[in-house]
Amino acid sequence: MTIPVSILWNQDQLTILNQQKLPHVIEYIHLDTIEAVFDAIISLKVRGAPAIGITAAYGLAIGASQFSAEKLEDFQQELHEQYIYLAGSRPTAVNLFWALERLMKKAETAKTVEEAKAILLAEAIAIHKEDEEHCRKIGEYALSVLGDYRNVMTICNAGSIATAKYGTALAPFHLGAEIGKEFHVYACETRPVFQGSRLTVWELQQSGVEVTLITDGMAAHTIQAKGVQAIIAGADRIAANGDSANKIGTLGLAILAKAFKIPFYIAAPSSTFDLNLADGTQIPIEERDEKEITHIGESRIAPEGTLVYNPAFDVTPNEYITGIITEKGIIYPDYQKNIHNTLGEQIGEEVSQ
Amino acid sequence: MTIPVSILWNQDQLTILNQQKLPHVIEYIHLDTIEAVFDAIISLKVRGAPAIGITAAYGLAIGASQFSAEKLEDFQQELHEQYIYLAGSRPTAVNLFWALERLMKKAETAKTVEEAKAILLAEAIAIHKEDEEHCRKIGEYALSVLGDYRNVMTICNAGSIATAKYGTALAPFHLGAEIGKEFHVYACETRPVFQGSRLTVWELQQSGVEVTLITDGMAAHTIQAKGVQAIIAGADRIAANGDSANKIGTLGLAILAKAFKIPFYIAAPSSTFDLNLADGTQIPIEERDEKEITHIGESRIAPEGTLVYNPAFDVTPNEYITGIITEKGIIYPDYQKNIHNTLGEQIGEEVSQ
Repeated sequence: MTIPVSILWNQDQLTILNQQKLPHVIEYIHLDTIEAVFDAIISLKVRGAPAIGITAAYGLAIGASQFSAEKLEDFQQELHEQYIYLAGSRPTAVNLFWALERLMKKAETAKTVEEAKAILLAEAIAIHKEDEEHCRKIGEYALSVLGDYRNVMTICNAGSIATAKYGTALAPFHLGAEIGKEFHVYACETRPVFQGSRLTVWELQQSGVEVTLITDGMAAHTIQAKGVQAIIAGADRIAANGDSANKIGTLGLAILAKAFKIPFYIAAPSSTFDLNLADGTQIPIEERDEKEITHIGESRIAPEGTLVYNPAFDVTPNEYITGIITEKGIIYPDYQKNIHNTLGEQIGEEVSQ
Repeated sequence: MTIPVSILWNQDQLTILNQQKLPHVIEYIHLDTIEAVFDAIISLKVRGAPAIGITAAYGLAIGASQFSAEKLEDFQQELHEQYIYLAGSRPTAVNLFWALERLMKKAETAKTVEEAKAILLAEAIAIHKEDEEHCRKIGEYALSVLGDYRNVMTICNAGSIATAKYGTALAPFHLGAEIGKEFHVYACETRPVFQGSRLTVWELQQSGVEVTLITDGMAAHTIQAKGVQAIIAGADRIAANGDSANKIGTLGLAILAKAFKIPFYIAAPSSTFDLNLADGTQIPIEERDEKEITHIGESRIAPEGTLVYNPAFDVTPNEYITGIITEKGIIYPDYQKNIHNTLGEQIGEEVSQ
């Protein structure tokens, strides 16, 4: 039993898990050019905000390593073009920009082309390692809050394959499997895209974690019938007051947790906080293609002319959140104050930018 | 725009809508023998508890009309055999037994074979007409409680095609369309079997009711974002204290309704009450084939070896129910007392049996 990882950097070569083919085919592919990385991102072979950021960082470093420019000026010019190119692969992915900008900033300090190439690769590796480290810490904190609980519910795939390793919401289950702590995870299938059935079930099976799949509408009855003791989910964006945007369906689970008097946790790295947003009402909700609901694959389920509402995310108000588990610690209410305290340094950085 | 009906009795011929082919093909088929009726029931061409009961009643009458027996005794013997045969088509369908037993009881009063044949058919037609009348009354009561509301959410298909006409939870929308009252219905797709996408959307489109399809996990966000003002659902079985079993996912909606402070109604004929059950904990929850969750059609979504929990129903405790809309009136809390008052006669009948 091994925790699956979706990004490998070995002997100067980038290898990723082709998540498009999961769970039926486990295919790892080499990405040897910036174009191959661009393609992997737009075609969703790699998914999950942290995983996209890491892959893009390696992509830019790989691209730069192949530049023929000998003068630093020419190199920086070409690097800027490639940065713009790669940033266009997924214009809504915040982590993608964040990772690429981090590399661009570091590259500015280089004195030679060779040094720039080395710096870019070192920074990509650093981003990769940091994310793994952050996820491990999140997993450890999550293990501590889950305590003796055995039956835990989750949604979507805030998993190892969406990050460098371990994941966020799934991190405690992977770490638990390593130390012999047995969880029974109830995975919501997560319509419309089935990340629960396709990814979370597979990923936890790989680690040897007991996992039962349910449809999203079964959550309430399952909490009751199976004695679910806690719910844990990831987040895409967290406002300064703790309101958390995550995959559609998360809000419903948080409301169920309150009704059944069980804790509801958000697990996310501190980079997920957007402290420029006072609260969740300021988080825009992306609407996606109606075909995700009217069709399964190419096969139509709903009649012609069906009106559809397909929001990709929902926002869970802070009042439903028992705690937010980050790599810097667990943040409890009063969120406004405690987010500020825990992420104080980060706030300083953001203000100074 | 016409309210679709799934059962027609015209010129001594039974015609049903083949619900297996919805929403892509609208096919009406004649059922001319008891065997054809049996097949239509087991192959799910007809679905919905009341619709199954009505179809079975016609099936027994059709079968009996073709008996060659000349002596009443022989006729009754053959009738009993066919009754047993038809009852076996769907052993868990309460309405099926109820309808067939009602015919059998009536047939006992016949003095001749010809009279028995006529009585059986007349009783099938009576069951059919009564169900339509009950559904129309439920729709009228539901219209009165929904008042000025425009945005209403529902789940599964407690619809016209599941009954003689109008349906239960969908009855107010059909009646509303007839009188120019415009609703905007939010239909939950209702995984795993997609009755919402396949049946409810289609059925409401036929009546000219505005309907928007969402996945089940989108309910919480949609209530908030679209200003849903009420939720209405059918029921499969209602206990003496008002606890109501219905399609899986209903309990979650009821909890959301309470959290968002909007009313949650159950719409069901009085025959749905099972007053032998003190409360909902006594209602057995059927578990169905795991393939409904791991596969879509023949195509596998979840990995091999996936554990699945697939309850077909959940039970909504009475505390979450604003009112239960029956053909005898709207029942409000205190349910224990008011169910007894409203269904008093029925209780008398049950006790005396």
